Formats: sequence, structure tokens, C-alpha cells
Amino acid sequence: MYNERIKRAELQSRIITATQAAALFRDQMVVASSGFTKAGDSKAVLKALAARAQEDPLQITLLTGASLGHGTDGILTTAHVLKKRMPFQVDPILRQSINDGEVLFIDQHLGESAELIHEKVIPKVDIAVIEALMLEEDGSIVPTTSVGNSPAFAAAADKIIVEINMSVPVSLHGIHDIFMAGNWPNRQIIPVTDAGTRIGSHAIKIDPEKIAGIVLTETTDSPAQINERDDKTRAIAGHLLTFFEREIRLGRLTHRLRPLQSGIGKVANAVMEGFIDGNFHDLTMYSEVMQDSTFSLIDAGKLLLGSASSITVSEACYHRVFNNFEKYKPHIVLRPQDISNAAEVIRRLGVISINTAIECDIYGNVNSTHIGGTHMMNGIGGSNDFARNAYLSIFVTQSSSKAGAISHIVPMASHIDNTEHDVDIIVTENGLADLRGLAPRERAKLIIANCAHASYRDELNDYFSNACKTGGHTPHRLQEALSWHTRFKDNGTMLRTVPL
Amino acid sequence: MYNERIKRAELQSRIITATQAAALFRDQMVVASSGFTKAGDSKAVLKALAARAQEDPLQITLLTGASLGHGTDGILTTAHVLKKRMPFQVDPILRQSINDGEVLFIDQHLGESAELIHEKVIPKVDIAVIEALMLEEDGSIVPTTSVGNSPAFAAAADKIIVEINMSVPVSLHGIHDIFMAGNWPNRQIIPVTDAGTRIGSHAIKIDPEKIAGIVLTETTDSPAQINERDDKTRAIAGHLLTFFEREIRLGRLTHRLRPLQSGIGKVANAVMEGFIDGNFHDLTMYSEVMQDSTFSLIDAGKLLLGSASSITVSEACYHRVFNNFEKYKPHIVLRPQDISNAAEVIRRLGVISINTAIECDIYGNVNSTHIGGTHMMNGIGGSNDFARNAYLSIFVTQSSSKAGAISHIVPMASHIDNTEHDVDIIVTENGLADLRGLAPRERAKLIIANCAHASYRDELNDYFSNACKTGGHTPHRLQEALSWHTRFKDNGTMLRTVPL
Repeated sequence: MYNERIKRAELQSRIITATQAAALFRDQMVVASSGFTKAGDSKAVLKALAARAQEDPLQITLLTGASLGHGTDGILTTAHVLKKRMPFQVDPILRQSINDGEVLFIDQHLGESAELIHEKVIPKVDIAVIEALMLEEDGSIVPTTSVGNSPAFAAAADKIIVEINMSVPVSLHGIHDIFMAGNWPNRQIIPVTDAGTRIGSHAIKIDPEKIAGIVLTETTDSPAQINERDDKTRAIAGHLLTFFEREIRLGRLTHRLRPLQSGIGKVANAVMEGFIDGNFHDLTMYSEVMQDSTFSLIDAGKLLLGSASSITVSEACYHRVFNNFEKYKPHIVLRPQDISNAAEVIRRLGVISINTAIECDIYGNVNSTHIGGTHMMNGIGGSNDFARNAYLSIFVTQSSSKAGAISHIVPMASHIDNTEHDVDIIVTENGLADLRGLAPRERAKLIIANCAHASYRDELNDYFSNACKTGGHTPHRLQEALSWHTRFKDNGTMLRTVPL
Repeated sequence: MYNERIKRAELQSRIITATQAAALFRDQMVVASSGFTKAGDSKAVLKALAARAQEDPLQITLLTGASLGHGTDGILTTAHVLKKRMPFQVDPILRQSINDGEVLFIDQHLGESAELIHEKVIPKVDIAVIEALMLEEDGSIVPTTSVGNSPAFAAAADKIIVEINMSVPVSLHGIHDIFMAGNWPNRQIIPVTDAGTRIGSHAIKIDPEKIAGIVLTETTDSPAQINERDDKTRAIAGHLLTFFEREIRLGRLTHRLRPLQSGIGKVANAVMEGFIDGNFHDLTMYSEVMQDSTFSLIDAGKLLLGSASSITVSEACYHRVFNNFEKYKPHIVLRPQDISNAAEVIRRLGVISINTAIECDIYGNVNSTHIGGTHMMNGIGGSNDFARNAYLSIFVTQSSSKAGAISHIVPMASHIDNTEHDVDIIVTENGLADLRGLAPRERAKLIIANCAHASYRDELNDYFSNACKTGGHTPHRLQEALSWHTRFKDNGTMLRTVPL
């Protein structure tokens, strides 16, 4: 059975158990793992490493593509294996440790995260763990449901442990497009000129001698959470679709739009599924993750081509797609994350980028990462890779949450990941603010009027008009600028007067 | 005399006076002008427009490449001509009006500023005023000491007024490399693969029928201010040169370094001139402006090639360079600002970027634009075009100023233009903090220890350790985070205890 997945016969003798693989790690090693938005991650070896650490403690620096599934980050955290972690995570246990200052987390642009390795800023990668669909005759690794940073990890690592996932259908072979732009000073042009341009090979070339062990697994990816559309997400999607129709009427866009990127989550999914109805056609995606909505759009005949670094879908969608993969295969391509998120390509293609904000301030600065300005949620991910270089950079958020106790439109963002210079459009369920070509004072009026929740609008207007008395290009009253956040901490609500 | 500068004979009849040109403008027009870091700007027409407005008031939206010289922005402001202004300025009178909310200013990445025109987000450009060295046989415009946004302006405008500057030697012909990547969805690869790659033509192609008038001028560019090196700039340059030597020893760089970018100002100049001594050789620049130091490095045989969008030098340097231009010509190329500042090229080349910060916070966020969080200084300029995509993103600032009353290392930046994700190195006269691969808590310790002024170090340490008690990935005490700025406003100093 596994023979057909290890086409280089001499490597078949390197099959080991996950426990044997875990014994290859040493304290203070730099370890890299495949895995991007829970897809194509290590299913066995990292967990076995956590188990081993119970008996034989060790600490590592762990690099990945993006988030891991199956609670692996939490299991490693609980086993005290993680010393340093980059570039992204979504695990509640790890998140707690990061916020307690126990695990050092480096929150990085996903499109740049391989560069610290290339540039030898962090110590050499000792071991890379890479999930594979199969190994080719020359030893090349064919990835599974994500590519992530695996090409960079495989190139940099001293040793590679391959996890061959027998549950992933071999029909995936051919969807990957592995291209490495090379290291400075010899970096090459990334010649992607539309979402579907193929510029590389189907597998990651390696020196087969680096393969220190092959572990067989059959666990599927953690399924993406299904978030049912609700009134708010429907309203946000509605505002955006109305906006796109307006742009088409103004001659700035056509019904083909431009290559779409959307972050993970229910709003993004709702917007993307909104394209199924209406006159949009021949759409493309140049994104970092393909979600359920990607395949709904293919089913509807609306999406010609989806390019991303991973496929992260619900269980139902997983079975629908992988049991009929020949239908979807011509429409998708999986790329390394420094290509899916490349500034060069995003700018060239004129991507329309839709990402979720934790909060936005009245001048258009966006906090994508920190709750209350201090506590890490997940990380910046690819949001600024796209927002910085997109044709249209859109951020969505609900206007308020926790029964109105939190306003997501605030006087000053408590942390800033996407600056006023990179934010074109803000949308909440209340409405949409098109900030392009506007000065800060114009932006504030529009964001407050169109996006803020009614119960915070008056106080935002008060803040803004008082700040204008103090003057400045970007009027603020610094002594009050973060008072909404401290009020929430003290009173459990950002509201000025707690309702009776 | 002017005949040889207007090679298309039929255009010679379109010579008019600046006053006649000024009469072509109408109220509420969108006007675009050449000019980048005071080089190659309109010398006559915009001033004549201000004079006309005294009798016949009108207001315009004014777009430029970057800053204008000769006080033109101030003169236009005083004449109440400016309604909206983008993307950058350095004029004290205009600055005051922006901060008073009288002129609406859009502070934009210089590398992206042409896109609002292409994408029809702002109304069509009615008139472009472009300084020229000469007009070619086909009517093409050869720019002078800057290219800036002139190709985009010329393409977009209904009418063009050309200012032929007779004082600029015709020997400049040939240094420009005009390339337009095209508009979405048909944007092309920008095939620059080293600082000197030429990809375009020597002049800006236009429809000669658009030329509504030609004005002859002979005023030279406003000279760059000469800032003598002082102990602080010398110390900052010294720390950086030591750092580069360390990187070379670690095998991350060679003495050729990588293409250099440096912002305007005395620190940047001091660093660049520091390369004259030492073992650096075969250097290149991929920057937005060439300054005195560029030509000192060429004189010293250290710089092979300088690429930028403008030449902005002191009066002495101007004469040295333009009186011996054949010597310098093979070493320089002037590009449109969407090419000099292109994310694609900056990333491909692995630029080493050096820019000045107004303030940095202890986690590495940089304020490049706002004094006290509210008042615009100049604008973000190209700082984030480079910092976001550079191989090494370096920010320099003095640790304190105003006789110690202001600390440039603060608990939380009062405005953020370059986020923690994009800042690799911070340098003050006290030392250098290499933030690469560090988590926020590690960064804070290093920035406080290496960069802060001694008189603020204890309070920064207190702030940080108190904040750590509150917890979080990025520990802050929000109620105190901006208190240094409010204290300065109230007491005239950020110091906790005013010394007796």
C-alpha cells in the first residue's frame, strides 16, 4: 500500500514510528513543520514529541507555515516543549502561554516568514517535519493540502522527517506549484501574471539523504469550523456586494472583479458566497487559503481559478471535494506561502483583499492581532501581505459585540497592524466607509456615520469634535484616546453610561 | 536658444508666460505637478497661479511627486489655493494649515500615489504642470532632476503645461528611465533585476496636442539643506557601520552590502558617507532620492550605481555634479516613483533601507509622521514602501531632543506608520537594537537597554515591568501608555521629575 507512495525504493526502508521519530529531537533544536491554516500539518511526530517530553523534557523553537490543527500547539505547550514559536497560531492553550510570557511568539507576515531562515537570522533548522502525499522517484516531496513554508524548510533543514498521509487521495498529485524565488542577492522575478499561472514544479526537490525517517499516518486535517451566516454577516456581505456593483457602474471594475483574497471566517465566507447570486462571473482568487466558499463558487460555475497555499474546509466540503477531485483539480493551484502572499504578485494582479479586523479606529487604523491592545489573538497572518499591496484593501468587523459592551470602532486602535495608509474600505453590519482619497478628518466623519454602532456614535462624534478643538492633521485627545479600552477593563463595557 | 530644447517645431509657437498659463486654471480643478523632494518642481506656473488667485480666487486639489521647493506650497497656501493636497509636503506654512484642518492632506505611500489617478478614485486630472529639460521631436517630455509621478500625471491629464528649465544642462538627457507598468488588470512585470537595470525610455511619451502651453524658466532647484555632522549623527553612523561589519563576519552580508536606500537628512547622509572609509566596495543604491552623499561615494569610487526618482543636493554639490556631468552620468538612473519605490523591486533586490523615525516605542513600532500623535510633520513618504519590503529595515532617531525634554523612545508610539512587523533595527546615538527574530518582551529589553537615553531608561524599565504584571504578548498599561506625550504637552517635558 505505502509502496506506491514511496516511489524511490531505497527510502522504503526508512519507515519508522512516530515515537522513533520523536527520539531524533534534541533540546534547543530549531524545528520546522508543514501546516498552514490547519491543513497539511504534522499529525503524528509533533504529538509524539510532546509525549516524549513528559519523560525526557526538551524545548524547541517551532516554525510552521501558519496554524496547526488537532490541538498540536496546545499539546506541545502543555508538555512545555515550546520555547519560541513563529509565525502564527490559533490555539487557545498556546495563546494563553504566549500572553503569560511563557512562550516567546514572533508574529510575522506569513509571506516573509521564510526569510529569517534564508538569511540565517535564526539558527539553522535542525529538523523539518513535512506531511507528504508521496515521495517521487528522485525523493521529491509532494505536499498534501497545503504548501506553506515547506519548500524553504526542506531546503534549510539538516534532516527531514516525512509524514506520508495515506488518507489524502493521490489524485491531489499535480495541484501544487513549487517555485522558489531564490535567496538574496540572487532573487528572481516571480513570473505569475494571473491567478492561475504555473511557474514551478509539482513537488519539493530535496536531497533524499536528508530524510531521517518516514512516518505513515492516516489522520485527516482538522475540519474548518462551520459558522452559519447570521444577520450581521449577511448585512456586511450585502454592503460589500452593493459597493462592488457601484464600482462596476462607475467603470472602475467589471463583473469579473479582480483576483479575490479573503481571510478565514464567517464574514469572508458569507461575502464570497454572496458572489454566487448576482451577475459576477469568471472570478479568480489569489489568496492564502481556499475555504468552503471557494468550492461553492466552483460548483456554481462562477470561479475559474483559485490559487492559495492551503485548502481548509469543513468535513462535509472535504468529502465533497476529495471524492470528486478530478472535477475541482483544473480550477485550483497550491503555492508556497511566499508566492501566494508575495507583494510582487498581489500588486501586479491588483488583488481585492477582504480581511477581518479586531477593531478599527476613526481614522482607519486597524488592529488585527491584540485584544485590549495587549493580548495576542492569533497573529497578523497574511492580512498585511495583502492589504499593503492590494488594489482594494477591505477590512470587515461587527460594529459591536458582547451584547454591545465592546465597540469595534474606537477613538484610537489599541494596537496597529494595518495603518491608515493601507486601509481602503471598512465595513460593519451598519454600513461601509470608502476611505480612498480622504483626509483623516473626512475619514472620521464617514467611519462614525457609516460603520459605528448607534449606541457609540454620539460618543465617537463627541470625541472627534473635542479632538478637533485641539487641532492636528489627525485630531486626538491623547488622555482619552485609549479610555474606552481601560473602561472596558474596569467596568466590563466600553459604554460611557451603563444602561439601567 | 530655446529652439534646441523644443525639437518639435510646431510646439515652439505654444510658448506663453507663466501668467498666461495661470489663466488656464479653473476653480475646483485637479492639478498635478512634477516635483520630488524639491527637485524638478514647477518654478513658475504654480507661483503665478497663487498670484492670480489674489485677484481671482480659486481652489484646487494639488497632486505632486513629493515635496515642492521654493516655498511654493506655502505661497499657494497663503493664497488659499489649496483645497486638497497629496501625497507629501515639507512646507511650514502648508503644514500649519493642514494641522489647522484648513487644507485636507492625504498622506500616502509615495510608491502608490499614482494609483488613485489610474483607478479614477479621485476626479480626472485637469492640468499637469511638468518641468522639462526639453521636448523631443515626437513631443515626448524629458524630465529634469526628478521623474516622480510625472509619467502618470502626463498620461492622465487633459492638458499639460510644460516648464522648460533652461538652467538645467542638456547633458542630463539620457539619465531617465521611464517605464509604466500599466494599469490593472493589465499590469506588467517590472523587470528590474539590479539597481542599474534600464527597462524604459529616456522621455515621457505624450500626445503633443495635450500641451496647452510652454513656459520658459531658468530657476534652479531649491538646494538641499546642509546639515553638518554632529556627535549624535556620527555615533549613529558608527553603530550602523559596526553592525554591518558584524553581519559581514557572520556571513550574512559581504562588503558589497545590498542596494542601499536612505531617507533624507543628516543621519542618513552621515551613514552613507561613513561607507567612504572602511572596506565597503562596489555599492549600489536603489532609493528614492540621491543626495550629496551619493556623489561623494561615486567620487570615492565606492558606488557603482545610484537609482532614484530625484537628485536633491546642496548648492555646492549641484555645481560640482552638473558641471562635470559626464563623469557621473554612467552611474545614475532616474525612475518614476512607482518604480523607484516598487514593492516588487525592493523585495527582489533585498534593499537595505535606512529611514528616520520621529519616535519608536519599546516594541519597535515607528511613528514617522505625527508630532505628539496629532500634528503632521511631512508625511510617510517612501519610508514604508522600503521598510515593508526591504531585506533590512533600519530606523534611526536621536534618543532624546529639546535638551532632554523629549524622549524618542516611548512606551507606546502616539501614531504608527511602520509597525513592529516591519522594523528590523532601531539605532540611536546610544546604540543599536537588532529586533529580528525577537518576541515583543525581548525587543523591549533590548530597545530600552541599547537605544533609550539614560535619563529615560529607568522609567521605561518601570513601565515595562509594571506592564508585564498585567500580562499579554505585548504588555502595556493603557492608562499610562500615552502619558509621556500628555506630560510633555502639560509640562513641556516628558521627564517624570523635572530636574531642579
